[in-house]
Amino acid sequence: MTKGIKIATIGGGSSYTPELVEGFIKRYSELPVRELWLVDVEAGREKLEIVGQLAKRMIEKSGLPIEVHLTLDRKAALKDADFVTTQFRVGLLDARAKDERIPMKYGVLGQETNGPGGLFKGLRTIPVILDICHDMEELCPNAWLINFTNPAGMVTEAVLRYSNINKVVGLCNVPIGMEMGIAKLLDVEHSRVRIDFAGLNHMVYGLDVYVDGVSVKDEVINLLTDPNNSSFVKNIQGQGWEPSFIKALDVLTCPYHMYYYKTREMLEKDLKNFENGETRAEVVQKLEKDLFELYKDPNLDIKPPQLEKRGGAYYSDAAVRLITSIYNDKRDIQPVNTRNNGAIASLPDDSAVEVSCVITKEGPKPISVGDLPVAVRGLVQQIKSFERVAAEAAVTGDYDKAVLALTINPLVASDKLAKQIVDEMLEAHKEHLPQFFKVVEA
Amino acid sequence: MTKGIKIATIGGGSSYTPELVEGFIKRYSELPVRELWLVDVEAGREKLEIVGQLAKRMIEKSGLPIEVHLTLDRKAALKDADFVTTQFRVGLLDARAKDERIPMKYGVLGQETNGPGGLFKGLRTIPVILDICHDMEELCPNAWLINFTNPAGMVTEAVLRYSNINKVVGLCNVPIGMEMGIAKLLDVEHSRVRIDFAGLNHMVYGLDVYVDGVSVKDEVINLLTDPNNSSFVKNIQGQGWEPSFIKALDVLTCPYHMYYYKTREMLEKDLKNFENGETRAEVVQKLEKDLFELYKDPNLDIKPPQLEKRGGAYYSDAAVRLITSIYNDKRDIQPVNTRNNGAIASLPDDSAVEVSCVITKEGPKPISVGDLPVAVRGLVQQIKSFERVAAEAAVTGDYDKAVLALTINPLVASDKLAKQIVDEMLEAHKEHLPQFFKVVEA
Amino acid sequence: MTKGIKIATIGGGSSYTPELVEGFIKRYSELPVRELWLVDVEAGREKLEIVGQLAKRMIEKSGLPIEVHLTLDRKAALKDADFVTTQFRVGLLDARAKDERIPMKYGVLGQETNGPGGLFKGLRTIPVILDICHDMEELCPNAWLINFTNPAGMVTEAVLRYSNINKVVGLCNVPIGMEMGIAKLLDVEHSRVRIDFAGLNHMVYGLDVYVDGVSVKDEVINLLTDPNNSSFVKNIQGQGWEPSFIKALDVLTCPYHMYYYKTREMLEKDLKNFENGETRAEVVQKLEKDLFELYKDPNLDIKPPQLEKRGGAYYSDAAVRLITSIYNDKRDIQPVNTRNNGAIASLPDDSAVEVSCVITKEGPKPISVGDLPVAVRGLVQQIKSFERVAAEAAVTGDYDKAVLALTINPLVASDKLAKQIVDEMLEAHKEHLPQFFKVVEA
Amino acid sequence: MTKGIKIATIGGGSSYTPELVEGFIKRYSELPVRELWLVDVEAGREKLEIVGQLAKRMIEKSGLPIEVHLTLDRKAALKDADFVTTQFRVGLLDARAKDERIPMKYGVLGQETNGPGGLFKGLRTIPVILDICHDMEELCPNAWLINFTNPAGMVTEAVLRYSNINKVVGLCNVPIGMEMGIAKLLDVEHSRVRIDFAGLNHMVYGLDVYVDGVSVKDEVINLLTDPNNSSFVKNIQGQGWEPSFIKALDVLTCPYHMYYYKTREMLEKDLKNFENGETRAEVVQKLEKDLFELYKDPNLDIKPPQLEKRGGAYYSDAAVRLITSIYNDKRDIQPVNTRNNGAIASLPDDSAVEVSCVITKEGPKPISVGDLPVAVRGLVQQIKSFERVAAEAAVTGDYDKAVLALTINPLVASDKLAKQIVDEMLEAHKEHLPQFFKVVEA
Repeated sequence: MTKGIKIATIGGGSSYTPELVEGFIKRYSELPVRELWLVDVEAGREKLEIVGQLAKRMIEKSGLPIEVHLTLDRKAALKDADFVTTQFRVGLLDARAKDERIPMKYGVLGQETNGPGGLFKGLRTIPVILDICHDMEELCPNAWLINFTNPAGMVTEAVLRYSNINKVVGLCNVPIGMEMGIAKLLDVEHSRVRIDFAGLNHMVYGLDVYVDGVSVKDEVINLLTDPNNSSFVKNIQGQGWEPSFIKALDVLTCPYHMYYYKTREMLEKDLKNFENGETRAEVVQKLEKDLFELYKDPNLDIKPPQLEKRGGAYYSDAAVRLITSIYNDKRDIQPVNTRNNGAIASLPDDSAVEVSCVITKEGPKPISVGDLPVAVRGLVQQIKSFERVAAEAAVTGDYDKAVLALTINPLVASDKLAKQIVDEMLEAHKEHLPQFFKVVEA
Repeated sequence: MTKGIKIATIGGGSSYTPELVEGFIKRYSELPVRELWLVDVEAGREKLEIVGQLAKRMIEKSGLPIEVHLTLDRKAALKDADFVTTQFRVGLLDARAKDERIPMKYGVLGQETNGPGGLFKGLRTIPVILDICHDMEELCPNAWLINFTNPAGMVTEAVLRYSNINKVVGLCNVPIGMEMGIAKLLDVEHSRVRIDFAGLNHMVYGLDVYVDGVSVKDEVINLLTDPNNSSFVKNIQGQGWEPSFIKALDVLTCPYHMYYYKTREMLEKDLKNFENGETRAEVVQKLEKDLFELYKDPNLDIKPPQLEKRGGAYYSDAAVRLITSIYNDKRDIQPVNTRNNGAIASLPDDSAVEVSCVITKEGPKPISVGDLPVAVRGLVQQIKSFERVAAEAAVTGDYDKAVLALTINPLVASDKLAKQIVDEMLEAHKEHLPQFFKVVEA
Repeated sequence: MTKGIKIATIGGGSSYTPELVEGFIKRYSELPVRELWLVDVEAGREKLEIVGQLAKRMIEKSGLPIEVHLTLDRKAALKDADFVTTQFRVGLLDARAKDERIPMKYGVLGQETNGPGGLFKGLRTIPVILDICHDMEELCPNAWLINFTNPAGMVTEAVLRYSNINKVVGLCNVPIGMEMGIAKLLDVEHSRVRIDFAGLNHMVYGLDVYVDGVSVKDEVINLLTDPNNSSFVKNIQGQGWEPSFIKALDVLTCPYHMYYYKTREMLEKDLKNFENGETRAEVVQKLEKDLFELYKDPNLDIKPPQLEKRGGAYYSDAAVRLITSIYNDKRDIQPVNTRNNGAIASLPDDSAVEVSCVITKEGPKPISVGDLPVAVRGLVQQIKSFERVAAEAAVTGDYDKAVLALTINPLVASDKLAKQIVDEMLEAHKEHLPQFFKVVEA
Repeated sequence: MTKGIKIATIGGGSSYTPELVEGFIKRYSELPVRELWLVDVEAGREKLEIVGQLAKRMIEKSGLPIEVHLTLDRKAALKDADFVTTQFRVGLLDARAKDERIPMKYGVLGQETNGPGGLFKGLRTIPVILDICHDMEELCPNAWLINFTNPAGMVTEAVLRYSNINKVVGLCNVPIGMEMGIAKLLDVEHSRVRIDFAGLNHMVYGLDVYVDGVSVKDEVINLLTDPNNSSFVKNIQGQGWEPSFIKALDVLTCPYHMYYYKTREMLEKDLKNFENGETRAEVVQKLEKDLFELYKDPNLDIKPPQLEKRGGAYYSDAAVRLITSIYNDKRDIQPVNTRNNGAIASLPDDSAVEVSCVITKEGPKPISVGDLPVAVRGLVQQIKSFERVAAEAAVTGDYDKAVLALTINPLVASDKLAKQIVDEMLEAHKEHLPQFFKVVEA
């Protein structure tokens, strides 16, 4: 890497790209990026062009010697890359809208990383990511793959299990968001807060939380369950937990736990949004349209503040922070998705887990967790079962496995519903699921 | 045990007792019972008297030198017992009716061993069984405790974890029923069928199935998913599985799996029964009334065939079969609830599991299972989490733990619902849950 | 297997064969053998002829319809076999003599299944057994391989890890000998004694011992350490343990434990034998010569009693007992070498262990052991490390791995000694170790 | 800790104390020590006085506001301490001389942390450390215990298992020495070298080694086995390994591995020293005498360079480095002895292991190792077995367990030798082993 670093960003036309570019600019002194290749597919050509020009303006303003390349030629982008980041969305937001709306028809939660939506996003994404891995083996075998395409847990699992790429890390902005929420709750600087994370992507728990290294978990749980505090908590968490539940659970939850510990309430809420035409995809489609209008402005040469509303805040920042730590062998602690290697007891050694790791030049090294608390062990294992069966279905195109995955998903829990939903969603996403529609001629 | 065997049956006034007595008579040549003590509480005095007299008539008819003792004095019954069987029901069928009806009001399944009903049956039963264990330590420290009071898994877990009694086995008639169903499906003698059982009580899977020692699992799964076979399967299983689901699952399920893999369908069915006043408790109350009328007949000296409808068929037979194997160090294979001891990977060594065991004079020795199939590992772990938190709540009377247990139960999955149901059920069962109502005076 | 059973015995010219034949005759009613194929290599032709004719006379005397085939054509013997037993010795007793004598020159124990001798017997045997497995895949894919060629643990490990044959069982007469010794010690019938075996081949412990199913371990350990008993114990065990040691160990040992818990004493004894020209190979060579003289007698039609002195008593009997249980799905308990599958904690799931198993038609199913006692866990793990590295050396012909295996063997424990011994023994056994002498031309 | 830090150093009269004091001076800006209490027993009064005055002169020279207290009153020293360091030696160097000389008489290695010497040092030390723990519970329950009294692994195991103190870390200078050796071998700065350590105290392996975060393990192993390099390697390591062995082992060893992988050579060397009156205790006794003469010089106010010859270089520095990291929640990586918590597979969760940890204010958090390489797993497990049985013997005074511990130690491996050595050493150390000489009157 002596000549400077080459980054290849798959899905470079994403609205998130300005945050990524901002991150590279901010951390340039530690992470001297020489080439940033933004690559996208034909369907994303226009977005790539718009966001790519903004990226170029941002770099130009910074005065840094970073070259920005825009291309539809993935192989050229991957060639000799040092880091490959992935933020693509197979089928774009239209596919997301289907993931959200179809399950609703069956009275099942529609969300893009959980339940049927998560399954189908995985089924569409995994073959593509494995294809990228295949190219990487040939074109940049020493590169690190930094994935933040959702469902990041299932995708990382698939890469670990079905590709020859070992240098993969799955990233999510949920843990960083949890830390920031706690910082706000305690009214301290974010940098003073540290959480021991353990679990899976979108199913991660904070086993302990520290300020300046001193555990404040009891205080945090008291604050979270204090009725005088409820509007503030709701503001941070979206919704409060029953005090009895969270006291007995005795660990911190992540926002996605709402789907599993408030299943009925979340479903009702989402059904209302569905009826009002306000599913998340619909909201985001509008936001994106506005964003790209902004991006087009030839005078814009910074990340526009409106991007934060988009929902993926800190995602790209987390990615650049991770890349910086790998590049510099920083050995700081970051929560990422990586191979378990015994860190969390009772999960397979070779499965992806989301856990606090020491970030070294040779990648993340998970800090030992031991056994998860009894009360959370079951749900974590169940989501891991779902992810593994789903990944297998994605790779093989095995219809029965897809039905099985959805049946054992706690948001579905019915073989009949699972079959109905799988049938309708397979048809709806047919274009992006060729593995399920192989023609077998006699 | 040279002078003959003493059996103490707690809950001796149960309608099942005639089956137990029949079992002792049938197996007398191998299991020379000298004393059978049927013990009950004051509230069960009348039933004890009725069923006890029937038991005496049955023994008399057999001509065997077995003494039947009827008593309300538990300590006298336990004194020097060789085997203690438990089949009591705290709060009788009225409590069951509450377990079934209250959850329904919240749109949650009402069933006596799963969900809220299972939790509350456990909360009521565990302190009593621990009290029995305490007496056993003093009065019959070498006796085996054969528990078939439900929820048998949670109860066995509690005995293993919170008593000093190691000689405990939890029994269930579900596995034997599964074997009989397969025998019917294949049209072979039951004795030729053997299943490798693994999982938890009411959450047990058949990992493989043999006829004369040869695996027939593939054939069985084909038969279960053959559309030409569906009415027959429905007859055996109550309901059929989606072929895709069961083929990909690739193991045999137990009837209680319907609650977890057909959650919505089961809920709808039960809501209908609930509205028609046909919950299971109501049906059973009627059946029991009829049975006891029959039992009163002074000419009746056999187990009446009507008992089989009661639903607990083979329960007592399984118990006598187990006792016979322990007594004779038979080393045959039986599925029971016992300490895991590493048999099922990723479940705690000291937790109760339901698994095929070799039955020796020193108790059941589980046959190694290794890892459960990926697809079932999660749900099993989740139910074990529930059982452990529930057992802890039962022992400590910790309200928060009760709410936690119910929140993580897959049939509830909502902290708010959990709290509401716990609140109403605690109040309804107040009389039998003193541990939750300890008066703390200032 | 409807037409009767075909057995193929590799190393059929062994002096043990009459015991095997006797076993098949005795158990014919349960195990209707139709064809017994005794197969050997060219170097064993004469022995095969002699022992084969005796086998034929024994069968004839029995009047049973068993055909005995003598052949040097291994493929013909394997074709459609139901069970394949292996009792061959690569390099015959001359090789054994080298295994025993060379280490002695370095002041290291010379024994055919432990230390350098065990390593080199493994290095010679494993390629041959893997070759047999390869043939079996093609010629009798459903057959069971019953191996009693030593070192049986290492050989079974190699088959499990490096062949496609899953139906393999390793057999040893040590456990049966331990049970018989205890029976003698307690003066009870052998059939009443049962031991819970766990560990590895020639490194197996009796975790508990029962008479009629009741634990008598404490009594046995008292008897073994009672000074009034010492001559009797010495008679059974060869030598007595320090009472303090065995009391604190609190499990039963096997004879081979002498090498590890009396290392210096055993070495001194063997050095004396070595100097007197009385190594075991020398003794056995003489015994064998006498045996084959006896076997030649055309009037001999039974297993001659002198065979018992040979040292392998009960070996063949154990094999026939095992085959009978598999064939009949007997589900009795026998100690065998099989895949661990979680039975012994902290040993790999896919490693060979020697453990009490339920013997079914689908093979042995280990009974869960859980954690081994702390004091024995280390030595067991160390021998397993040795076996695995040794098996890898045998398969790859990797010289460095052979040196490593011997260095970590507790009877050598020196890299310099290991290298010297490996060098001399590789040369001495060159003919039978082609994998270490592959010519690599430039 | 707001008012400045209080350190209590048990065994303050040790010749190492000047290094510790130097460490506190050097790191004062990060670690503002206010009080340093050097505490010793009556027998060490004179040494405490000498070294204590030197410490005071060193502090005075530094101009820092650190108070040095010299005392024989352990309770006063412990009262409200923030960190307790232990570097005492029960029975002083005379006891060490016995530990080294007695085993030699039986032809067994005499060394103070391995084999019989290690066992007896543990038996003497563990009751004292548990007594300190008991005082700490009362006097400074929030303090960290930093132990570098050997055998540090066994002592840490005993504290974890038999005291109520959780805040304990065992320290050793072996890992830091390995890193420095590698730095010398590669001719790079020590700070650029990092090793992934895993194993037990004095049985620790370097699983990988990095310069600036990049693995150089292959290069290091090549250098270590390059014949052109041998004199240099010997200089670093004392002695070279057989290239075949170390290549196949494929991990870095620590100096104490010589005892296990060159057992015979080390024994011969030590026997020679023994015959020449040059056992380590004898050498050290002379060194110490000289050191204390130096320390008496009232003009000396620095750590004299001669201390480095003493053999414990970097010990105290490692301790201060660790304390600094805990105090400041530094989250840097250091190798320490701590609770395994699943970091190393197949070792108990609650056992002490020596492993690379992240050092936080809440103590060391081990980085997950997963499975140790096959070839080293066995020896590590065996030493852990020894340590656990030895710790149990130390706590209970159970003679049989002491014999068992020594029999399973790979440097003894004989029940008869074990008994003889235990008998003679118990008698020789009688004064310091009261737990084995409890008078039981009738």
